[in-house]
Amino acid sequence: MRWMIKNGTFITMNEEQPVFKGNMIVENDRIEALTADELDESQFNEVIDGSNRVYIPGFVNTHGHAAMSLLRGYADDLALQVWLQDKMWPNEAKFTANDVKWGTSLSVVEMIKSGTTSFVDMYDHMDEVAGVVETSGMRARLTRGMIAIGCSEQVQKDKIEEAIAFSKTWEGKANGRIATMMAPHAPYTCPPDFIEKVVQASHDLNVPLHTHMSETAREVQENVDQYGARPVAHLQKLGMFDRPCLVAHGVHLTDEEIAILKEYDVRVSHNPGSNLKLASGIARVPELLKAGVWVSLGTDSSASNNNLDMFEEVRLAALLHKGVSGDPTAVPAMEALKMGTLYGAKSIWFEDVGMLKAGYKADLVGVDIDQPHYYPKTDFASHLVYSGAGQDVADVWIDGKQVMKNRTLTTMDEEKIKAETQACYDRIMSTS
Amino acid sequence: MRWMIKNGTFITMNEEQPVFKGNMIVENDRIEALTADELDESQFNEVIDGSNRVYIPGFVNTHGHAAMSLLRGYADDLALQVWLQDKMWPNEAKFTANDVKWGTSLSVVEMIKSGTTSFVDMYDHMDEVAGVVETSGMRARLTRGMIAIGCSEQVQKDKIEEAIAFSKTWEGKANGRIATMMAPHAPYTCPPDFIEKVVQASHDLNVPLHTHMSETAREVQENVDQYGARPVAHLQKLGMFDRPCLVAHGVHLTDEEIAILKEYDVRVSHNPGSNLKLASGIARVPELLKAGVWVSLGTDSSASNNNLDMFEEVRLAALLHKGVSGDPTAVPAMEALKMGTLYGAKSIWFEDVGMLKAGYKADLVGVDIDQPHYYPKTDFASHLVYSGAGQDVADVWIDGKQVMKNRTLTTMDEEKIKAETQACYDRIMSTS
Repeated sequence: MRWMIKNGTFITMNEEQPVFKGNMIVENDRIEALTADELDESQFNEVIDGSNRVYIPGFVNTHGHAAMSLLRGYADDLALQVWLQDKMWPNEAKFTANDVKWGTSLSVVEMIKSGTTSFVDMYDHMDEVAGVVETSGMRARLTRGMIAIGCSEQVQKDKIEEAIAFSKTWEGKANGRIATMMAPHAPYTCPPDFIEKVVQASHDLNVPLHTHMSETAREVQENVDQYGARPVAHLQKLGMFDRPCLVAHGVHLTDEEIAILKEYDVRVSHNPGSNLKLASGIARVPELLKAGVWVSLGTDSSASNNNLDMFEEVRLAALLHKGVSGDPTAVPAMEALKMGTLYGAKSIWFEDVGMLKAGYKADLVGVDIDQPHYYPKTDFASHLVYSGAGQDVADVWIDGKQVMKNRTLTTMDEEKIKAETQACYDRIMSTS
Repeated sequence: MRWMIKNGTFITMNEEQPVFKGNMIVENDRIEALTADELDESQFNEVIDGSNRVYIPGFVNTHGHAAMSLLRGYADDLALQVWLQDKMWPNEAKFTANDVKWGTSLSVVEMIKSGTTSFVDMYDHMDEVAGVVETSGMRARLTRGMIAIGCSEQVQKDKIEEAIAFSKTWEGKANGRIATMMAPHAPYTCPPDFIEKVVQASHDLNVPLHTHMSETAREVQENVDQYGARPVAHLQKLGMFDRPCLVAHGVHLTDEEIAILKEYDVRVSHNPGSNLKLASGIARVPELLKAGVWVSLGTDSSASNNNLDMFEEVRLAALLHKGVSGDPTAVPAMEALKMGTLYGAKSIWFEDVGMLKAGYKADLVGVDIDQPHYYPKTDFASHLVYSGAGQDVADVWIDGKQVMKNRTLTTMDEEKIKAETQACYDRIMSTS
């Protein structure tokens, strides 16, 4: 299968050629070339007119819990610990494998429809999640999130075994679209010896680690009270950073901690929408970027966001740090767009994703720019970041395959998924 | 003309009945009733099925400069004064009446398509703006924004005369859809004696006042340096607050200043997107609301936002102040929605706008909730605020007349407007 987009505008994330106008050729799952040459159209299986589109690499959402879409709008405007312990966890405990399947499906629909082509998921019933990724055509780095406090030694052991089995089963599956990690949920939900066991498994499997870290000031203080160290030093000591490691949030960081993250090449998933909504605070993103840390963007779950539209996270990343720092040049539009795409791929070790360049995976998004908020036709990176929204996404390809065509999904039954998720929600709420 | 929506979900902004499920009857320009009664459909000119919609009062955008859409994306990521003085003002000086007509038209298209039914505009060539409002069916409070520094006494006098003439010509026109104000641009662009003259005109015409105030820390300091007072005390002394007055921004306010704004019933247009993008800071919205000041929402122009989607301002109002204050209950979803609708109407003295209630103007918006990010069907106020976007708006009525039907405008030629604004932009950029 060899196809092309002609007369498109491509925002590439490639510094050698940030914006390219012309044609893009895709062969099977990879970009073959971006070229201004006149091409013999008969040589291609399909030729797509790109003249009313701007193309970008698909967004990479580096932190989330897809199945939690079932709890969207269920309990807003509460503090993180109350929200987690009183509202989320008791209801999540009722989630069956079937709930996870449909909740994840709804999230994947939403992600594709707003231009996300890769995502991280940390949850339970992960075989269901992987199944949805496989059939939807999505790309993902998946991990069984493990909470260990309050569990017997046997249950802790079972959780790690389950996470290992999941990784062994799914790593590299679906033409490489599925990769895995190991994920102790957080320092405040996992005892140190448990974390060390997970780190060992990450070594054995040769997969990265993922965890929540320093999301709230309270959690940082409790870590100090309980373990005599802030979370960064604590996790460093437990060996987390000796492995490739992605931490979510990283809101409350000192200069020294930022230096440690850089030293160990720890990657940070910045979740501005979720951090604001849960009043967790505002991460020190300009400082992290300046230190050379890979900072990417995540939505977190749609229970704390409340959607999975990466346009919003990109815009928040661009706006928020200007307003907080007083520096209007903090996180310019193109840098925010890179955080949402290229830096996202880097953050989850997808080395051939996140750029429109020959040899990279053909994960890309066509945005409909024939709309009033994209006029006048000036700087499209600016328009995407400061004026765009997920609903502007018209076409999506992942691994060279078109998964959305003019806003119609080609791999998923949206109507059935909406109905099934509603049924799941109704059942969860009706059981105590 | 008498029509109804049946089986709709209405988020009313009426505290007696915040969410109503049933039917709404409209007669001519006003809501006749919200009723659960079975109705004889033959009694109505039109019966609309509302079962896949959530209805809210149209958004009221209380600060902007619509024609500046021509400069969207032209000069981002710069400091306010540089952006204004080096980028905006020199290009705005080239704007002709024709440019203002098309730039405003583009903005009105964008506003209607994202659910705004009333807006404030402070600009030049205001007869053109009023003309667009009249023909589009929009509702607006309009004012000729006056910059007086560097102008001769004669030019200053001419500007005030022009603003007075505009007010006299348009106040109450278009079945009352057009109202006016008097607007000295800002304390830093208008000498005190000029402001006093504008205040006098506002008395004479019996219309409110509008100005930019305390947007940046620098501007506050310069006011102190030049006039020995911060902007609030300065404007109070000049008599601005003895008249009904709407101030835009109000980012840098002390407790004492908030108390003065409350005492004089000054209304504040909070522009979170613009304030973040220009790194002006973050307004003390929870404190203003707590003090009982009417706080509404404005986009500012799409040159500093960069769109006119009030969903984004509502969401920012709900998210930002949680994250900054550390209080996740700050500005709950419904309060943010009220800021965007009811409080907006109150802020511009549209006393029968902003609520879905018998007797109020039929300015309303139908949002398409049959989309993944509105599932599961739980709390629709939350879904609108935390998950919605302007593109979800399907239908819009203003003054009882449908101006958008399933995303197609009924009063404006969108294609022509896009082409004309592009032509205006190209001409402006090609002239020095």
